[in-house]
Amino acid sequence: MNYPNGMRKRVKKKPKSSTKIAYSNRGMSLEEDINVTNSYYLETNRAVIHKKPTPIQIVNVNYPKRSAAVITEAYFKQASTTDYNGIYQGKHIDFEAKETKNKTSFPLANIHEHQIRHMNAILKHGGISFFIIRFKEHDETYLYPGEKIVYFWEQQNNDGRKSVPYTSIQKDGVLIPFKYQARIDYLSVVDQLYF
Amino acid sequence: MNYPNGMRKRVKKKPKSSTKIAYSNRGMSLEEDINVTNSYYLETNRAVIHKKPTPIQIVNVNYPKRSAAVITEAYFKQASTTDYNGIYQGKHIDFEAKETKNKTSFPLANIHEHQIRHMNAILKHGGISFFIIRFKEHDETYLYPGEKIVYFWEQQNNDGRKSVPYTSIQKDGVLIPFKYQARIDYLSVVDQLYF
Repeated sequence: MNYPNGMRKRVKKKPKSSTKIAYSNRGMSLEEDINVTNSYYLETNRAVIHKKPTPIQIVNVNYPKRSAAVITEAYFKQASTTDYNGIYQGKHIDFEAKETKNKTSFPLANIHEHQIRHMNAILKHGGISFFIIRFKEHDETYLYPGEKIVYFWEQQNNDGRKSVPYTSIQKDGVLIPFKYQARIDYLSVVDQLYF
Repeated sequence: MNYPNGMRKRVKKKPKSSTKIAYSNRGMSLEEDINVTNSYYLETNRAVIHKKPTPIQIVNVNYPKRSAAVITEAYFKQASTTDYNGIYQGKHIDFEAKETKNKTSFPLANIHEHQIRHMNAILKHGGISFFIIRFKEHDETYLYPGEKIVYFWEQQNNDGRKSVPYTSIQKDGVLIPFKYQARIDYLSVVDQLYF
């Protein structure tokens, strides 16, 4: 059996002997973890949540005979919304996921203004919106409510602070448990915060 | 003022003298009409509904010095969900839009099985899911409930019928009015059917 990125070694180091919840998940990127989690949620009928495709501006396409169209020139576009959305317990869920190497804060430079506008609109229409933030150096992944991110974003113009302190994320966010199948089991945190 | 695709002529032909609702909209593609409509809904805080980007498999990217990354080889992937989703009145909305030149039926070959599975899942989780179907030859655009499409899809294996009859779409669907700003004002039909 092949484990990605040295997972095997980790499994050996941490035998599942205890009932302690693991919050650690070295190796896979946050995006991979969330994709695996969403697939698991979908297969188990827990929720229908997908990552949106990366927006791309297509400039040139070739149509070779007898084979698939080839895009030969295209550019990455800036996303106008968040990366993930879907439905859970009848509610609209919308979130963005970000990793940072920073230890003491989450830099707001990671976010675009239209993403904040989008989250704000989702919240006003009665949806659930949040960030999943991974502090790579702490090996911790948090669910942090959209309202809080919007608050810090708007505060930028007042106090000039360009980041969300790690302490605020610890206080107002919730650490997401790492599980074997629902690797980043964020819906367990959504249950806790919103239902 | 520039009107796209000969709109001007149409406007001249149909002065807004009556209170009759127009259901006709020659000229723009269904996708363009829906995008314009969604922008209008967003600007007026009516709903937050976006088209998902086209899924693309990127094979090669060049990073020229001092300029943006260029994708030099990529392929279109099949969508695993529907094209549009978002939130309206606190409810999750999910739909697909299709045009057909057929006059008597909507061919199911226009739909992929995973799209049907996706719609089914959305419906089971309490979302609103439907098709927007334009019959180009009739110059009519209908909202047709997801449940009905799923029914016809599943019937294929029983009666072998590979399309949804135009008569069923007239009976169980609702003609979407054409308006100046919300060009394809499908939320007026959603109000009527779901709220």
